[in-house]
Formats: sequence, C-alpha cells, structure tokens
Amino acid sequence: MSLFSEFTPVRYQGPDSTDPLSYRWYDPTRRVLGKTLEEHLRPAACYWHSFCWHGEDVFSLGAPLFQRPWFDEADAMKAARLKLDAAFDFFQCLGLPFWCFHDRDVAPEGATLRESNQRLDVILETAARKMHDRGVKLLWGTANLFSNPRFMGGASTNPDPQVYAYAAAQVKHVLEWTHRLNGANYVLWGGREGYETLLNTDMRRELDHYGRFLASVVEHKHKIGFGGTLLIEPKPKEPTKHQYDFDTATVYGFLRRYGLEREVKVNIEVNHATLSGHSFEHEVATACALGLFGSIDANRGDEQLGWDTDQFPNNHVALIPALLEVIRAGGFTSGGMNFDAKVRRQSIDAQDLVEGHVGGLDTLARAFLCAAQLYESKALCDARSQRYAGWDSELGRSIEAGAGLDTLSELVLRHGLDPKPQSGRQERLENIVNRFA
Amino acid sequence: MSLFSEFTPVRYQGPDSTDPLSYRWYDPTRRVLGKTLEEHLRPAACYWHSFCWHGEDVFSLGAPLFQRPWFDEADAMKAARLKLDAAFDFFQCLGLPFWCFHDRDVAPEGATLRESNQRLDVILETAARKMHDRGVKLLWGTANLFSNPRFMGGASTNPDPQVYAYAAAQVKHVLEWTHRLNGANYVLWGGREGYETLLNTDMRRELDHYGRFLASVVEHKHKIGFGGTLLIEPKPKEPTKHQYDFDTATVYGFLRRYGLEREVKVNIEVNHATLSGHSFEHEVATACALGLFGSIDANRGDEQLGWDTDQFPNNHVALIPALLEVIRAGGFTSGGMNFDAKVRRQSIDAQDLVEGHVGGLDTLARAFLCAAQLYESKALCDARSQRYAGWDSELGRSIEAGAGLDTLSELVLRHGLDPKPQSGRQERLENIVNRFA
Amino acid sequence: MSLFSEFTPVRYQGPDSTDPLSYRWYDPTRRVLGKTLEEHLRPAACYWHSFCWHGEDVFSLGAPLFQRPWFDEADAMKAARLKLDAAFDFFQCLGLPFWCFHDRDVAPEGATLRESNQRLDVILETAARKMHDRGVKLLWGTANLFSNPRFMGGASTNPDPQVYAYAAAQVKHVLEWTHRLNGANYVLWGGREGYETLLNTDMRRELDHYGRFLASVVEHKHKIGFGGTLLIEPKPKEPTKHQYDFDTATVYGFLRRYGLEREVKVNIEVNHATLSGHSFEHEVATACALGLFGSIDANRGDEQLGWDTDQFPNNHVALIPALLEVIRAGGFTSGGMNFDAKVRRQSIDAQDLVEGHVGGLDTLARAFLCAAQLYESKALCDARSQRYAGWDSELGRSIEAGAGLDTLSELVLRHGLDPKPQSGRQERLENIVNRFA
Amino acid sequence: MSLFSEFTPVRYQGPDSTDPLSYRWYDPTRRVLGKTLEEHLRPAACYWHSFCWHGEDVFSLGAPLFQRPWFDEADAMKAARLKLDAAFDFFQCLGLPFWCFHDRDVAPEGATLRESNQRLDVILETAARKMHDRGVKLLWGTANLFSNPRFMGGASTNPDPQVYAYAAAQVKHVLEWTHRLNGANYVLWGGREGYETLLNTDMRRELDHYGRFLASVVEHKHKIGFGGTLLIEPKPKEPTKHQYDFDTATVYGFLRRYGLEREVKVNIEVNHATLSGHSFEHEVATACALGLFGSIDANRGDEQLGWDTDQFPNNHVALIPALLEVIRAGGFTSGGMNFDAKVRRQSIDAQDLVEGHVGGLDTLARAFLCAAQLYESKALCDARSQRYAGWDSELGRSIEAGAGLDTLSELVLRHGLDPKPQSGRQERLENIVNRFA
Repeated sequence: MSLFSEFTPVRYQGPDSTDPLSYRWYDPTRRVLGKTLEEHLRPAACYWHSFCWHGEDVFSLGAPLFQRPWFDEADAMKAARLKLDAAFDFFQCLGLPFWCFHDRDVAPEGATLRESNQRLDVILETAARKMHDRGVKLLWGTANLFSNPRFMGGASTNPDPQVYAYAAAQVKHVLEWTHRLNGANYVLWGGREGYETLLNTDMRRELDHYGRFLASVVEHKHKIGFGGTLLIEPKPKEPTKHQYDFDTATVYGFLRRYGLEREVKVNIEVNHATLSGHSFEHEVATACALGLFGSIDANRGDEQLGWDTDQFPNNHVALIPALLEVIRAGGFTSGGMNFDAKVRRQSIDAQDLVEGHVGGLDTLARAFLCAAQLYESKALCDARSQRYAGWDSELGRSIEAGAGLDTLSELVLRHGLDPKPQSGRQERLENIVNRFA
Repeated sequence: MSLFSEFTPVRYQGPDSTDPLSYRWYDPTRRVLGKTLEEHLRPAACYWHSFCWHGEDVFSLGAPLFQRPWFDEADAMKAARLKLDAAFDFFQCLGLPFWCFHDRDVAPEGATLRESNQRLDVILETAARKMHDRGVKLLWGTANLFSNPRFMGGASTNPDPQVYAYAAAQVKHVLEWTHRLNGANYVLWGGREGYETLLNTDMRRELDHYGRFLASVVEHKHKIGFGGTLLIEPKPKEPTKHQYDFDTATVYGFLRRYGLEREVKVNIEVNHATLSGHSFEHEVATACALGLFGSIDANRGDEQLGWDTDQFPNNHVALIPALLEVIRAGGFTSGGMNFDAKVRRQSIDAQDLVEGHVGGLDTLARAFLCAAQLYESKALCDARSQRYAGWDSELGRSIEAGAGLDTLSELVLRHGLDPKPQSGRQERLENIVNRFA
Repeated sequence: MSLFSEFTPVRYQGPDSTDPLSYRWYDPTRRVLGKTLEEHLRPAACYWHSFCWHGEDVFSLGAPLFQRPWFDEADAMKAARLKLDAAFDFFQCLGLPFWCFHDRDVAPEGATLRESNQRLDVILETAARKMHDRGVKLLWGTANLFSNPRFMGGASTNPDPQVYAYAAAQVKHVLEWTHRLNGANYVLWGGREGYETLLNTDMRRELDHYGRFLASVVEHKHKIGFGGTLLIEPKPKEPTKHQYDFDTATVYGFLRRYGLEREVKVNIEVNHATLSGHSFEHEVATACALGLFGSIDANRGDEQLGWDTDQFPNNHVALIPALLEVIRAGGFTSGGMNFDAKVRRQSIDAQDLVEGHVGGLDTLARAFLCAAQLYESKALCDARSQRYAGWDSELGRSIEAGAGLDTLSELVLRHGLDPKPQSGRQERLENIVNRFA
Repeated sequence: MSLFSEFTPVRYQGPDSTDPLSYRWYDPTRRVLGKTLEEHLRPAACYWHSFCWHGEDVFSLGAPLFQRPWFDEADAMKAARLKLDAAFDFFQCLGLPFWCFHDRDVAPEGATLRESNQRLDVILETAARKMHDRGVKLLWGTANLFSNPRFMGGASTNPDPQVYAYAAAQVKHVLEWTHRLNGANYVLWGGREGYETLLNTDMRRELDHYGRFLASVVEHKHKIGFGGTLLIEPKPKEPTKHQYDFDTATVYGFLRRYGLEREVKVNIEVNHATLSGHSFEHEVATACALGLFGSIDANRGDEQLGWDTDQFPNNHVALIPALLEVIRAGGFTSGGMNFDAKVRRQSIDAQDLVEGHVGGLDTLARAFLCAAQLYESKALCDARSQRYAGWDSELGRSIEAGAGLDTLSELVLRHGLDPKPQSGRQERLENIVNRFA
C-alpha cells in the first residue's frame, strides 16, 4: 500500500472527457508521423519535485508543508523504500514509460561517500527490479552536486580540489548505475557551477576545471561502454548569480573550447530558456542549428516571475513552434520529455500531483499533434524555402562558395544592385500556425 | 563658426571645481600604472548619437526635436560638412583623442552605392585633414547596415543574397577607409543580424552566411594590410527580437564555429551587457577569460527599462569591478572607451552634449583611478589566490593534469575525503572595493 | 480607388477555412451568452499604427519603410484625405464596427492651434459622413499630446503651464468632436505624463496638475453633455522612464486622491499590463474589483522584449482567463476591443495589415467563445465559491461585520483554533480551463 | 559567552582605516543638518536574516549550512536564549541603536497559540531587560504570518476565516509587546497576502478582508494607546505570484479605499522597490509626495536576478538620490534604516555577519553625508524651482485655481500660444550629484 497504489490508472478518454484523472489528448498508441505518441514524446516523471520536495520555500523557514508517509519515517532507508514504492505506483498510475532521478533523491546520503554509495546501491537494486516489473525505463540519471554544504562554492568549479574529487567520485557511481539501469542519457546539471561574485572568482581557471571534469566524464563513459548520451542542462542563474551553462549558445562555445562538441548535447528546460532571455523555441532551434539537440525538461515559467517556477505546461499553442523545430530536426533519439515540474505549493494533496502531470502531458500531446499536422501541411516549410530561394541562385551559390569583398563590391557597383525589401509575412505565418492549434 | 567653435576647451580643474565645463577627475596627463590616463582610457566620442540623432523617438512620429544647423540645411553634402566642422570642434573642445563613425553618419547615402561611396570619399578626405590638424585619431569605423530599408531583414543574414553582396561592398569601402585613416579597429555591429520570428527563419543557414561574411572581412583585412583589430559588438535584442551576437559567450562559440577566434575580438557595450542579463563586469571578465577582450562602448542603461537607453556613465563605484578586470588583463591594446552614449531627449541644447561627455569621462576616469589603486593594493588579488591555493597542491595539479573518475573516486573512498566549506568572504571583498571608491 | 478598395470583404468561413482573408472564428452574428459576438467584442481598428506609422524604428534613422500612397503626397490635407479613404475601406473590408483615432492621426498639425483645429474639422466632417455611410462607429477619440516637441516634458505635467494650457485646448477640441461623432468613450493616454529623472521633477506638483487637468476634462464632459465614458490608459514606462499611470492600481489611487473614481475608468492594454509586471488578467481583475473596468486595447507583447511591441494577439488560450474576468464582470458597457496592434516592421505589404487584423480578431473571438463556455459550465465559479465558503459561516460574517483583535484572540485561545491548510487545486483548475480551450 | 561576545566593538576610525572591523564613514556622533548621524539614520539590525536563517536555499533541500550554537541545541527555548544572547552582543558589537523582529524569530512556536504566546512572553521579558541594559531600542516588531503551513494561502486574505482569526490573535500579541517594548513602529508585512492564481481567487473579497484586518489593527493600536506608527511594507511578488502591497502607489490606493491613509505609512525596502519595476528613489519620492513615507528596509538587489536577494548596500552613489528625497521630506520621524539584509550563502562565518553590517552602515552613512551636502548646496533645489517657475506666474496660478478647458482654449487660440521646449538639463544635474559623491 503506497500513497498512489489506490489511484486507478489514468487512461485516454478523448477530448470530451470531464474526468480529471483521464487523458484527453495523450493517447500513447496513436500513430502520427510514423510512430506512436509515446514513442515521439518519451515522457518521464522526475523524482525530486514529486517525491522529495516538502513544499518548503524561502518564507517557510523550513517548515514542511506536504504530508507524505516517507517524510514522517525516522529511518532514512525505510523512508527511501516507502518513497520508491510510491514513485513506481505513481509512474504506473500515469502510464509513463520513463523516469529520472538524482542519486540523493532516491537514497539518503551517508556519513561517508562509501556509505552513500552503498545506500544508493541498495535502493537502486530495488528500483531495477521495479523497472523490470513495471516496464518503466530510465530517461536519465544524474548526481546531486549542489545540496550538501561541501558544494556551496561549486562542484567541479569549486576553489577546493577536494570537492572536485568528491564530485568526480559521485558522478562515477551514478554514471555507472545509469549504465546498469540502461539509462538513455546521463545529465550533468550545473547546480552551483557558476559564481556569486567575480571579486573572489578566477573564471578562466574554473572554466578549465569544468572542461576537464566534463572530459573525464566522457572518458569514463567510453571506458565503461555506456551507450547513452551525455547531456548538459543550460541555466542562466539560480542558485548562483551566474551559471556557466547560461544557455545553449554558451554551452556550444564551452564544448568547442574543450573539444567536446561531438560528445555532449543539451537538455533544454523551458523555464531555463525563458530565464536566459530566450524563448523556448529559440533554445530548441539553436540546439538543432548547432547540432546539440538532446532532450527536453518540460515545464513552464511564470512570465511575471524572475525565478524558476517549474510549473506544468498548460498552453499547447505556446509550445507548437518549439515542437515543430523538434519534428523538423527528426525528433528525439535518446532524449525525451521529462516533467521537471512541480505542483504549486498550495496543491498539497497527492491527487494534485497526479492531476498536474495529467494536464502537463495532455498539453504536450496536444501541442505535438498540432505541430505534426502543421509539419505535414508543409505550409511553413514552403514559405521558408521560398523566402531563401535567392540563395539557390547563382549569386547565392557563389557567396556560399566564398566570394570575397572585392568580387561582391565590383558586382554591386557594376550592376548598380539595389535590392528591394520583401515582406516577411510574419502575421500570415502566425495565422497559419493557429490553423493547426 | 560651428555649433561648438565658441565653447572654451574643457580642462582638468580638480575635484573641487564647480565649473560644469571642467573635468574634475579626468587629467589626461596624470600617470598611473605606468601610463597616462589618456593612454589608459583612450576615450572617443561617437558621431551618430551626438551629431545625427534628431531627438526623435517612437512617440515623436518623426518630428525632429534638436535644433542643429545641419538639420536645416537642404543640401545634404553641405549639411555633412557643417556637421563635420561641428564634430571636430566638439572633439577638440572636450580634448578627446579619438572618434568613431558609421559611413552613413558622416556622409549622406546617394542614389547608388557608387554615389554613396563618392560622397563618403569627399567627406572623409576632409575628415582626414581635420584629424591630422587637430590630432584626433580614429578608434574605429563601421558600416551602417541597418537603416536603409534594404537591410530590414538583415545584412549578411538577409534572405536575399543581393543584400549580402550590397553589405559586403559597403563594408569593403569603410574597412578600406578605416585602414587609410589609420583606425585602431574596425567594428562589425550586428545591426539587424538576427530574426523577428523563427517561423520564417532558417537559423543555420543565416549563421553560415554570417560566418562566411565575417571570414571575408578577415580575408580582406589581411589583403589590404589593415593592422587594426576586427571587433564584434555583442547585443542580445533590439532592433530584432533576437540578435545573433547575443553576448560575449555566444560570439565566442560563433567564432569557434567558423574558425575565427584568433582574428576577431569583442567591443563590449555596458548597456548591451545588462540587456543580455549580465553585469558589465561579467562581459569583460568573460571576454578576458576567453581571450576576446577588445574594446568598450561606454554608457549605462536604466535598470528599470528594457531597451538600450545609452546614457552616460554616472556612477564610478559601479564601474570599478569591470575596470579592475580590464587592468588585470593588461589594459587596452587597440581598444578604447567609446562613448556610445546620448543625452536624454529633453537635453536639447548643444551645451547638454558637452556636459554629458564631461560627466561621462569624469566618471570613467574616477573609476579607473579607484580600480588602479585597488589593483596596486593587491588586496583582492591576494584573497583570490588564497582561495584557489588548493589547486596548486598535489591533488589540484593531478586533476589539472587529467586524473579521471576512477582515480579520484578511489582517492575519496580510500581517504574518506570530506571537504568542508570555506567562507567566500564576499562582504569583506565588497568592503575592500569601497575602500578605494 | 484606395489602397484597400480592391480587397474583397473578409467573411466568416469557419474553422476549416484555409483562405488567409477569411475569419475562422469571428462570426459576428453568432449568439452566445445572450448577445452576438460583435456585441460582445465590439472590435475596433486604430488609425495610428495602421495608417500613420511608416515602419521606422530607432535604427532606421527616420528612413520610411512602408509604401503607402499618402506618404508620398506632398499636400498634407490631400494626404489626410487619401488616408481617410483607405482607412474606411479597410474598416469595411474587415467588417469592423468601430474605429479609434488621435487628432493628429487624421489631420496634419497646422502652424497654430487654430489652424490645426480647422484642419481637424475638415477631415472629421468627412469622417462623420463615412461613418454614417459605412455604419462604422467611434469607440473612442483622443488627443496626441506627445509627438510635438512642445510636449517633450509632458502635457498637463509639463513644467511650463503654457503647455498645460495648450494640451487643455487640444483636448477640448477632440472631446467635443468625440461627442459629436457619438463616440462611446474618450481616452486620456498618458503619453509623456511622467518623468525622465527625479532630479529635476516635482512629483507632487505634477500629480496635482494632472489631477486638476483630469478634473477639468470631467467638468467639460458634463458641460457639453457627452455621455461616453472617460478612460485612462495605464502604462508603466516608455516613452518616459516612469509614467504616472503605471498600472490600474496606481490609477485607482490617483483617482481617489482627486475624487474622480466615479468619473473615470481604465482602458487596459495587454502589452502595458505585462510591461508593468502584471499579467493581463491581473489588470482586468483589478479593474473589476475596484470598479474601474472600461475598455481593452487588444494586442500582445513579446515575453523576451522590454518595450511595447504591440503585436496582434495570436494565442487564444492565453487570453481565456482575462476574458473570463470580463464576462464575470458583465462584459463591456461602453468599452470594446481596440486593436492597438501593428504589423511587424518587415510586413510591408497592405495585405499584411489585413491579415494581422484577421488573425487578431479570430484569436479574440476564439478566446471569447472558450471563456463563455467555461463560464457557462460554472466549473471554476463553483470551485471558487466552495473555497471561500467559510466566509459565509458565523465566524466569517462576524469578521466582515467588524470583529476586532481582542474578540478574535479570545476565540482562538479559548477554542485552541488550529486551522489546517486545504489544497488550492491550481493544477485542476488550469486543466479545467484547458477543457474549454 | 555568546557567538559575538569576543568581538571587539566596531568603532569609527575614519576613511583611511584598513581594519575590516571599523567604520570608515559611520561616525554616530558626527553632526550634520542639525542632528547626529545616528539620529538621522536610526540604524537597526534584523533578527531573521542574521540569527534565524540557516543558509538554506531552494537547492539545499533543507540541509543547513551555517553553524551557529543555537541551531544545534535541541531544547527550543534554550536555543532561543542562546540566540538572544548572541543577538544583543551583536547589536552592541556594531553599536546599533535599534533592532527589529518577528514573533517567531525570537521564540519558537508552541503547540497552541497560547503556548506560543507564553514562549514569546518569556523570551521578550529577557529581551526587554537586555534592551534596557544595552541601550538598544526597538525600531519595529512584526508577526510572522507566513511560515506556518496554516498561512500558505494568506493570513487575513486566507479563504478560511479561522486563519484570519488566528492571524488577528497573533498580531494582537506582537502589537502589544511592541507597545510594551516602546517600539517606534509596528510593521505589517504582506507575507502571503496575495494570490498564486486568479482562477481560485476572489480578489475583491480578499482585499476587503485585508482592509478590515488593517482597520482592526488601527483600532487596537488606539485602544491600547500605542503611539508608534503602523507601517505596510510594499512588495510586488515573492513568495506569492502577486502581492497585494505591490508598491507604494498601490498601497496608497488601498489605504484610501479603506479610509486608512492617515493611519498607516510605508516601510520601503530597496530590493522590493526594484522588483516592482521602480527605482528606490521613486518609491521614496512617491511615498513623500503622497504623505506616506515611514521607514526604510536598507538592502540592495542584484540587477540581474529576479528575486529578493537582500544584499547589503555597497554603492553609496546609487543611494544619494533616495536619501536626498528623505532629507527634503524632513528625514525620519518614527522610522529608521533597518538592515533587511543577509550575508551571501557562502559567507558562513560569524565575522562575515559583522563585516556585512559594517560595510552596509558605512555605505548608508557615506551616502547620507553626500546627500546632506548636496542638499545644503541647494544646487538641485534651485534648478528645480527655476524649472517650474512658470507655475508661479499668473497663468500657472489660474490653472491651479481651476481654469477649465474653455478658458484655456480661448487663451491659446486668442494669443496663438506656442510654448517652446526648454532643456531638462538631466546630465548637468547628474554631474552636480557627482560633485558631492
């Protein structure tokens, strides 16, 4: 008997359903663009927000709000098992094919790393069995390199190399478990890799350490034969004033600097995108253009709030442009849609957790179906090709082939070139998107 | 007789001066850190804000506000000469060693590029003489690739290759003039290189065109033997929704992608930095860490406004951290401090222009003097070295030399490593800065 | 023959229409909640963005971009007539029942106010006939108190009382014309009522002048027997650093201060709401709660840009909460939905203007239909009533009736009251909204 | 022996001091504008940030970071006494004349309100003695109506009237203690008075409850004869999506609505000002213009971060305009400068707490001294008077006396009034400020 064992499974009941515990759009078996919706979306629930957060915030002064059986259990390992039972019942209730975790989410930290590793081993052994029994797969694992006080000044970018070593040891263990659990990806989330003030920071040295750390993870991946994808999750700020993985373009430059651009991709979070001053579709489009697109942390921010609110997506229209970019780029390979989303603090009941995920997944599914139809219509694609048609002309080809300033200047002067502007048709294209929304 | 020929030169009169047309901190001959203040700051005035802007904004519906003799002159070339006379009197009045311009600032556009080039030639011939006579040097030149309607959809990133060709031809001419005027740098300012909507944009193709364009400028620079530095000026947005040169880290990745990271540096503008979600010192520190630091566009934004307000710097304390980074990195080589700043719209008198620059330059000078003293005290430097001292230990060196996850994990487990946090001392360091402010 | 006389009228063709010049959702005659969609939405086009803007921006240096016949006409009054013809053909093409204007939009300013008034008279006489012939009504008129240089420091809040007088004279004329044209409302838009720097501003005195100005408009309204509503349009910033009509709550305090809260309501613009740090639905809900709701300027901002982008609404899901508030409050009385929206700068063709409005009106119509169904379902309303049910209990009533601290303290202590939190069910409610989206 | 009993008192040692535990600007006995600096600034330390915060943030998952003896003490009342001892040693070490607290900061919550009150009584009895012995006064007290889960949906604006009653009972007790401790003010801080989503919120009803609550506090104040000032602390957002006390102008309208504008003033926090989209000086100037200025929570935000960072002030130049407004308005009466500021999370040592306050107070003192000199110079004041001189002319006076639209229109038309713009001289005024910085 877990917190979620009594919930009846959430099933697809179609757009007219008024049952709050049913899917209206997410029909996992529906085929579109040659695959099922489940295969396209590869949805996952995350452990941390749903099972580890007590509902505390900076004004709660640590007073826990949510009541979950495992929060009241004094024996930490017993609590971890209660939590695991609930989590897998929850995944099953929602019919989710994937889950994600940090090491410290699933098992309590011990007095030493050795003990922490042993505790993790115990819990993940059970998790492995549950994954097999329930048919739930691991989208990605990751190490929590930010909650313990030792990481207050960063993990691989810490001024103390012992912390770097500790972080390396921790990542090794989780990476190996991710491999053993057949995880599709392994995520490096910056956590506290950044700075609070430049006054005490040697940015160049910290970047070099971060680059070396990442390289050593790549080396270890190959050493152990892990076939999943390594992902960096960009975020511009919070908890630090500045995070080194600010956005996708920054991560690209970082990977190039350390020669890792073929080894690592990005896990784009919607709310991180908007906090960095970009639209979600911008981050996806940039990742696709630079060859870095990996996976998505599905959530939404609040347009009026300047921190990571991690809310469930609830506006399918807003997601169509980003999903269209994903489709154009060929969809996910190892990546998927992880709900890095949490219920609002006042949503204290277990059922709120379920309904939050139901609404979020329905929003993703609906948006994907719209984007797929839009894609199939070719309406936007054709308009775009036409707009750039000149680049397939002789002039365009000669420029792409390397025509220099002298050549082009002579051309302009000789022919008196005076190109006229052509409408960008933005409103028409936006209306076309709405035809499919 | 020009608008500024009657102004008495602005001279250094010391901190107690109450004359609004005197410098209180900018003593160009004062020596500090082995050079004069003028040699350190290399201050410049820009042509566009001071001599070309009519005071119009989006609510003036084009109604000009400022009254300058050249705005009333119907003959465009005559107006350009009136403007040039006033500009050089203005530079002299302020005692500025440098100026900056766009092609279309100094000479009116003609009916064809040929005519535009000829007009530019005429005016810049005169400018060359004035530069020689007045001892004013060119910090940088640049081409206006954004005002003419042909550039509404970008210059090198335009969907029409003819616009690319036109831009190339225009840059060739200004680059060659910059060379002839012995400019210290040539700036590529993104202007409209970016997008309004992803719905009609092929980002990858546009980036490739932009990369090719930049490479062709590099090639031409070497071909003509221009010894100055090529600079890109990052800006995140405005006029476009997204500018490809979002910030320094983005420019770094872009340069790496097209193999140009040894050829091009950045011209960092304060207000562009803050619009991109960074502090000014962050952008400078990033450029220094990545080897891209070139020059500075000195101004300030308004913390409550979301667009580029281009105000004169007026808070020397706020500038100390950035100038400290500049000093640490060895100061300017070819770069300098260009006032990309304009008086407020209601500051309609010619004297306002002078006073704006006086206040701005005094602020820079005062900040630099504070930063230099702070640097000489070594107080911050020592604290930083101490903070990272562990990286000079055996462990630190072994990590930097490539220790992998297995090695480090074994070390942590065997020794039961448990590093303890050390205070980052941010408040102490901030107080130290204030000792020199 | 005007720019729009050849366009075939845009008609409702249903959701499956692929004709870019048809409505898919806006069926003006469709009845819902007891009225037609046209009666609910009361849509209007504005003169300024569609017929006066040349496509210039701060980087175009005044170079006009859009080609419209009246921009090329040297005779200003002839140009005004060409523009008027085009405008009314445009309104008719779109089937819009309302329009809005500033005085300077429709007729060119003259050398004196007398001449300006005469020019306005001439054009508005023609406009009156066109309104009658085409069955187009005036949603509101307003005076442009911001473009002429005299208003650079504000109109009623100008440091020069002559400017106040000028503004008063101008408003008198437009208010009287609005009355004569049977306008449903008269709008006071802050324009430059605000400040650039507190260093030269006497805020208290400026507020008093603004209060007096508004009172005199109220007095004049009653004097001439104008039966329409006076509206203030809140905006937080731009063109000034701070606008006195920051948001609805600020306007409320201002109206209370000058005893005008029963005389004036607000015209809420979506993009102004978001620039002030609020959601659009927040501003509508606040206006309804404070009894100030008047009218809406329909547009959208860009979440990543910090200025007023005035784009057409294109996400119906995002608008449902605000429209639900409008419905709950009983809908519009004199107000309506004015498209204070402009095509993007690259949308240079006349057809882009039409398509922008088509998409915008379809978005509003679709959102309204969703909100109406949601309202009729009572699903949200019931949940809310239930949440506050305690306030209809004895304790709730006694508090609302004035129970003081002593009474309540005694109650809590005596009974050991210890109220438990109840879920706020935010995710469920968001999912309910999506059932109707 | 407390955490701070070994620290030597921080004393004024002048600008050249390099002792990190000395004041360089804050000489409490220095006289300026007729009073001592201590009398002007009335500085206070707050209990919550300095003694209650464990250094946890949203990524620490509750893991405490700071090591303070009272955090390790299992007996809650014993811990409260350890904390109290340390706090008063801290106040004395810094030479601060004032302190501030929430009820739950000083004493632990009990199982019932009765027990909580008793615990508070015990600790505050001791505090009263310490205040007397050390000569430390209470700037203000307040009730924590946000940490306990019962307040998750607000206190007086909670959907459950029992929570309202509980909050009333809690405020009664703290208000009475504030009275007994001779507090200069009592603060009502919004805490969770606001909403997370409008979908479940009855804004009008919540505002009415909040108004009634505030009125009952006013009534109780008079009933018990408390002579201090009631203060509301505006904040726009965080922890809720929207706080009802958004900014000073909003609070003004709220107070007018419930007839409390003569009973309540505002406590302006710097970081709350900037989060609401205003400058700090704007909030102070607004409060002064509307007659609401009460007290200040001195801190600073981070310009790049969208949440309340509560850092210590460290830029005196930035504070001059706000302090000038305070001086113009006659300075504080009951209010003062409370450091609602906390050390950065990595500043884990007790000494960091001291140095943070030293730097903050020095910054305030230096800014005040600059503002006082600027004020005495009358330079800005004279410029402002001159700018508005027209309003003391006949026309200005007639307008202020009520001239209507007809009168003013006739005047403009008859005389052909055509007022010309005058420079606002912003740059000159900014330079004047810097003369005193």
